[in-house]
Amino acid sequence: MSTTSRSPVDQSQGAKGAAVTRHPLRVAILGFGTVGASVARILVERPELAGRLELTHIFNRDVARKRAAWVPASVQWTEDISEVLASKPDVVVEVIGGVDPVGGWVRRALEQGAAVVTANKMLLAAQGPALLHLAATRGTQIRFEAAVGGGVPLIHGVREGLAGDVLTRVAGILNGTSNYVLSRMARSDEDMAPVLDDARTLGYAEADPSADIDGDDAGAKLVVLAGIAFRRHLQLSDIPRRSIRQISAADFRYARKLGCTIRQIAMVEAQGTGFHAFVGPALVPTQSSFGRNEGANNVVTIVGKYGGESSFSGAGAGGPATAVAVVSDLLALAGQPRAGDVGEEWLPAIVAPAPARPYYLRFVVQDAPGILASIATSLAGQGINLDAVLQEPGFAKEALPFVITVEACEEAALQAALREIGEADFHAELPLALPMLWTDES
Amino acid sequence: MSTTSRSPVDQSQGAKGAAVTRHPLRVAILGFGTVGASVARILVERPELAGRLELTHIFNRDVARKRAAWVPASVQWTEDISEVLASKPDVVVEVIGGVDPVGGWVRRALEQGAAVVTANKMLLAAQGPALLHLAATRGTQIRFEAAVGGGVPLIHGVREGLAGDVLTRVAGILNGTSNYVLSRMARSDEDMAPVLDDARTLGYAEADPSADIDGDDAGAKLVVLAGIAFRRHLQLSDIPRRSIRQISAADFRYARKLGCTIRQIAMVEAQGTGFHAFVGPALVPTQSSFGRNEGANNVVTIVGKYGGESSFSGAGAGGPATAVAVVSDLLALAGQPRAGDVGEEWLPAIVAPAPARPYYLRFVVQDAPGILASIATSLAGQGINLDAVLQEPGFAKEALPFVITVEACEEAALQAALREIGEADFHAELPLALPMLWTDES
Repeated sequence: MSTTSRSPVDQSQGAKGAAVTRHPLRVAILGFGTVGASVARILVERPELAGRLELTHIFNRDVARKRAAWVPASVQWTEDISEVLASKPDVVVEVIGGVDPVGGWVRRALEQGAAVVTANKMLLAAQGPALLHLAATRGTQIRFEAAVGGGVPLIHGVREGLAGDVLTRVAGILNGTSNYVLSRMARSDEDMAPVLDDARTLGYAEADPSADIDGDDAGAKLVVLAGIAFRRHLQLSDIPRRSIRQISAADFRYARKLGCTIRQIAMVEAQGTGFHAFVGPALVPTQSSFGRNEGANNVVTIVGKYGGESSFSGAGAGGPATAVAVVSDLLALAGQPRAGDVGEEWLPAIVAPAPARPYYLRFVVQDAPGILASIATSLAGQGINLDAVLQEPGFAKEALPFVITVEACEEAALQAALREIGEADFHAELPLALPMLWTDES
Repeated sequence: MSTTSRSPVDQSQGAKGAAVTRHPLRVAILGFGTVGASVARILVERPELAGRLELTHIFNRDVARKRAAWVPASVQWTEDISEVLASKPDVVVEVIGGVDPVGGWVRRALEQGAAVVTANKMLLAAQGPALLHLAATRGTQIRFEAAVGGGVPLIHGVREGLAGDVLTRVAGILNGTSNYVLSRMARSDEDMAPVLDDARTLGYAEADPSADIDGDDAGAKLVVLAGIAFRRHLQLSDIPRRSIRQISAADFRYARKLGCTIRQIAMVEAQGTGFHAFVGPALVPTQSSFGRNEGANNVVTIVGKYGGESSFSGAGAGGPATAVAVVSDLLALAGQPRAGDVGEEWLPAIVAPAPARPYYLRFVVQDAPGILASIATSLAGQGINLDAVLQEPGFAKEALPFVITVEACEEAALQAALREIGEADFHAELPLALPMLWTDES
């Protein structure tokens, strides 16, 4: 096996971020499932990355059935791992999962000096310290933003953004399947069996969901988070994991009585010189960030001695979100200038008009007949459609506030209508217009 | 003025993170207010930083009244900026604020090759591109994790963790004072004037809160976020800012009718080749992350083409939280090994027992007299105090679920009690014990 000492990864990405590599990093993807395909798609769809990252190989078992027409013809498809490694890739992206045989392939890649980007929390939980050590001795890196929290940039946020703090606790909802099951039970008062059946049908749970609901998946992610937050390796076997299988509809009734709901929580906290960790169902306040986290989303809170609590949330899984984390790691390897690095530039921005939005219009008037008709006419004159008219009781006639909501419209048209409306003599106060944000998504 | 080309900042922090600087970075702090004092305190209190960061100077006007006994005697206190710069600091931490005269001092520091870490969003909004360019030409850096979102690691998270995505929208609650005022109005149905008076008394608002409630503070932070997310410089004058002063108690009544509440939102979105930004009050769904954000907390959501929505929240201001961001930047300059970098190591963790916690105990029993007494006796035998007993109606007598919550206790004691309780013959199912997390904080 070659142990070449050439160092394709930019050695100057820190303080000299502007000095990018001379040639694009040659990237081989191991595994063309949802994540691997999404990584390839981002590399293909973002032409501005071409100078820095070049996809050269895609490895998959039974690769013939995987070939996708949108992948450039220059990419080699193979089911032979030795062919991939013999091509001397600069970076191996490992998105297959599992400890064997993948761990051996990752070691071979690191041994020949390739960088590795992986989403494989099970491998990191089992062999993280050894792989980090091997990478160090070969002068290369293993990066794993994608291993925890899918597209939530936890590793960068915790490891670098909170480096100035002394962290004391990391806790999160790290498994989307369990959270989907528990948050649906909380709403529907169903028992677990029918919810789990539905989750399988809808693709939120695998045929055998044991790793998700018994806590092994969240446990492996917690090992990675503990490594990042505390630089300590907790063995997965040191983390008590309790299944959510015992949770019944009755438990949600009682939890509600206590102002709580039930979630699968993964948590590690510093205790003196040691660390205590666990994964399993727990009561959390309904109004906490855990209690409010619904569906397959992930949320992680970090507590530090100085900074208090910070929270991160987002899509915990899914091909595109996880692929973003992989590509972020690839760009870090390629010497992407970092925030504030030498070479960071802010070019002048072109100012665009506001997109069409629904608006909330509040008027305070001296009440009289015909006011609503007058306002509606001015809005119609600009092609703006009314959505609702609201008038609450209990206000004085001489300063009566009422509200009109309008469908999405251009801000310029709205301003023109409001100028016309403002000329009337029935106003007790100037009209107020507020954009309504995301009401269609809530 | 010296334009020395020596490069004290570790040039190899990226791929060769293990190769830290040979001498600690000499750090001068400009401004000894709440943030500056908190930065100094972290540097003093974390002895493990001593090899990498050495506090040498503290600059403040009228410095005599600022001297603190806990600062090491080796630190020079001065009110002469030229004395600070003549000492050739490796890093200047600027936490004074304002554009003049501070901008000139920052330029002088960069010109002589010092790195600058700043929390000054107004300076960055006004002169960000020029300062980034100056830093680049001098082979140094200007870093500003502390300028937006206090202790929330937004800059690292957005700029690096989401580098793999194509970002389309950044929106957030960036001003704690406005959010305190609006979230309190939403709860109390008060008008703004008395709430603002209270906010001043409680220290949540300055004597003149114009910059906060009229949107200049959030606007400057939005300029910085747009630079990070899009690498484009929006002029503050290109961002329409509307005050929250017009919002009345009546508006919250109407917003509630629409399933919404009102928050000061700062938002920038890509529109074709341009960008639209605004700061001002907006209706947001009560159940959205914006609508649920209370008090002085900050929350930011980032939308990407591939990864969907990610969200970051935490303390937006305050000395210690902002100081964490400053120290994180200092460590990045000092060559703190990054996640996955060469030199990253996870040492074996010592496993500690769980801290004492309150627990939820659920029993399913064949109902009979004396069960509760029997369970209570076993718990008392381990010194565990009952908190509440809950029994909901509507369950069958032969499989009756009821709940006992207990005050914080050691897990080992609880397990011993549950073993004893489990020996009784009244159980229809095994007892379930769940930790109750943070119920005292909610």
